[in-house]
Amino acid sequence: MGGDHAPSATVEGGVLFAREHPDHSLVLVGDRALIEPLLAKHPTAPSVSVRHTTEVVGMDEHAGAAIRKKKDSSLRVCFELARDGEVGAVVSAGNSGAVMAGALFVLGRIKGVERPAIAALFPALKGPGRCLLLDAGANVDCKPSQLAQFGVMGETYVRVTRGVPRPRVGVLSNGEEDAKGTELTRAALALLRQSGMHVLGYVEGKDIFSGEVDVVVTDGFTGNIVLKTSEGVAAGVTGLLRSAVEKAGLPAKVGALLLKPTFAGLKKVVDYAEYGGAPLLGVDGVGVIAHGRSNPRAIQNALAAALHTAQASLREELTAAVGRAESWLPTRVRGKGATEEPLSE
Amino acid sequence: MGGDHAPSATVEGGVLFAREHPDHSLVLVGDRALIEPLLAKHPTAPSVSVRHTTEVVGMDEHAGAAIRKKKDSSLRVCFELARDGEVGAVVSAGNSGAVMAGALFVLGRIKGVERPAIAALFPALKGPGRCLLLDAGANVDCKPSQLAQFGVMGETYVRVTRGVPRPRVGVLSNGEEDAKGTELTRAALALLRQSGMHVLGYVEGKDIFSGEVDVVVTDGFTGNIVLKTSEGVAAGVTGLLRSAVEKAGLPAKVGALLLKPTFAGLKKVVDYAEYGGAPLLGVDGVGVIAHGRSNPRAIQNALAAALHTAQASLREELTAAVGRAESWLPTRVRGKGATEEPLSE
Repeated sequence: MGGDHAPSATVEGGVLFAREHPDHSLVLVGDRALIEPLLAKHPTAPSVSVRHTTEVVGMDEHAGAAIRKKKDSSLRVCFELARDGEVGAVVSAGNSGAVMAGALFVLGRIKGVERPAIAALFPALKGPGRCLLLDAGANVDCKPSQLAQFGVMGETYVRVTRGVPRPRVGVLSNGEEDAKGTELTRAALALLRQSGMHVLGYVEGKDIFSGEVDVVVTDGFTGNIVLKTSEGVAAGVTGLLRSAVEKAGLPAKVGALLLKPTFAGLKKVVDYAEYGGAPLLGVDGVGVIAHGRSNPRAIQNALAAALHTAQASLREELTAAVGRAESWLPTRVRGKGATEEPLSE
Repeated sequence: MGGDHAPSATVEGGVLFAREHPDHSLVLVGDRALIEPLLAKHPTAPSVSVRHTTEVVGMDEHAGAAIRKKKDSSLRVCFELARDGEVGAVVSAGNSGAVMAGALFVLGRIKGVERPAIAALFPALKGPGRCLLLDAGANVDCKPSQLAQFGVMGETYVRVTRGVPRPRVGVLSNGEEDAKGTELTRAALALLRQSGMHVLGYVEGKDIFSGEVDVVVTDGFTGNIVLKTSEGVAAGVTGLLRSAVEKAGLPAKVGALLLKPTFAGLKKVVDYAEYGGAPLLGVDGVGVIAHGRSNPRAIQNALAAALHTAQASLREELTAAVGRAESWLPTRVRGKGATEEPLSE
């Protein structure tokens, strides 16, 4: 029920996914009266079922309170299905704070994890590969140990789900020298340098797109601003190009026509819809946040990413990595099922 | 002497500026043995002179210490010429921390200013106008009153130098609701709401390029990351397009040729070289930081921006605005000539 184009884009994206993966089943969680007519438009999706719910967590609600109060909200029921083993992964295009709060409240966190994080994938514009940045918005105020643990979780995710044997980890800062940054980043980098991981040191904003770093660690405030700034620039540049072509004369219009396949290739690289959403790392289960503006293609890709993550042994690998990190990373360990919310709510 | 392509790009940019402004004089400060042969290549620039210096502040030096120690560095001498009234404005493509430290050490700050800031101009990709973001890197750790004062200085700069009668001011955050952000941003926004300026509230990363906000306030850590992230995305997207056209077949190549004027127009919008550098706001004089990778065009535009700022009554307007703000903004006032460095050094 969440997302700017829900439930129609969600249903259509789900059907696209189901057709591509006939050996898996998909549960659409939400208002049956809205979902079933949409589903009827797509006849051939036998593996899709509907789980009716009566409530919705809105974009403007206090996430934690809404999750507690709205016991029959689509979001809470999604994670309960995951908790009870009825589904292997959850995808939502709703309020990202609420998705994180729901996952934490219902699934809890993996043993040893201080703060679960939202991880966002960025294209490496100057080379192959992608860059995982975390936290992208769940935890506004962070401690050094939490940032260091984001590094451990991000490295594990890239290693396990993307097959990169020794991911390169950097801490986002305002310069490359160790003396740059804030107290927070300096302490986090000092911790990470003891980790045995492939730690590059500080990286700058431009490095996220360079192909030279696989995991970028930052607090959720800065990470969210990086995410939205880069979306703004990419959308702005492509929009400027489009409007310049519209205003241009016939030669430029012919040129744009001839370049259409090239532009389409470019769009595929910079379009968030191709990126499969942002995984929640550190919650005890698989949750993926799709972009709020998700179109059917974005939902389809987020579902595929969630399936891929559920099939990898991510939970076991994260538990092991967080456990190993205890030798160099002093964290306040909280048990599974702790219900404290991320500070952003 | 500062910048990746110095002194050749600096000299050439200076000559371009001097030809465009024959009624003004330009002093090139640096190693005469390097500058004069470069200058000899450009015969018609009678208003250009050279002030010989023997030392250079390097990119990797501790800025404050270098400025104190290197009494005959090009950077320090530049600001001494400004202090002594021999020049009206200083432009440097060198180490931005050192430029700020030099300005603070030699010129001091305007009465009432807690922390001078580096202000960066961004294109409004989705509309006319530009957006001024500050601080772009001088002050890594800030207090709410400092952020609020950045708002006052940025608003004044946009009003005075760009003729916007009532600039719209926003505080950069991870969401639009007042409850979002950090302790720092919430306190700064609460202060700014008492200012009588046109304060929009929180703005997000994408809003910088929307044309809907004129001044964006943030700390120097976040601001620097925004600056470098947006440079990385813009360079990456245009680079991807270029390499896609190179790899494409003949029709796309013809298309690119037909679109060449359109691409050139786009480059003019996103290219930092067109933006005239980043003014230092709050130091007692006019200083502009040109991009480290400045080509001659970037130097020329930075000089033009510095001239424009020196001709405006910015100093008086900043003094008045900072004074008026004392009614709602409790700051620790320090006198002119205070030599404390910005924390980023």
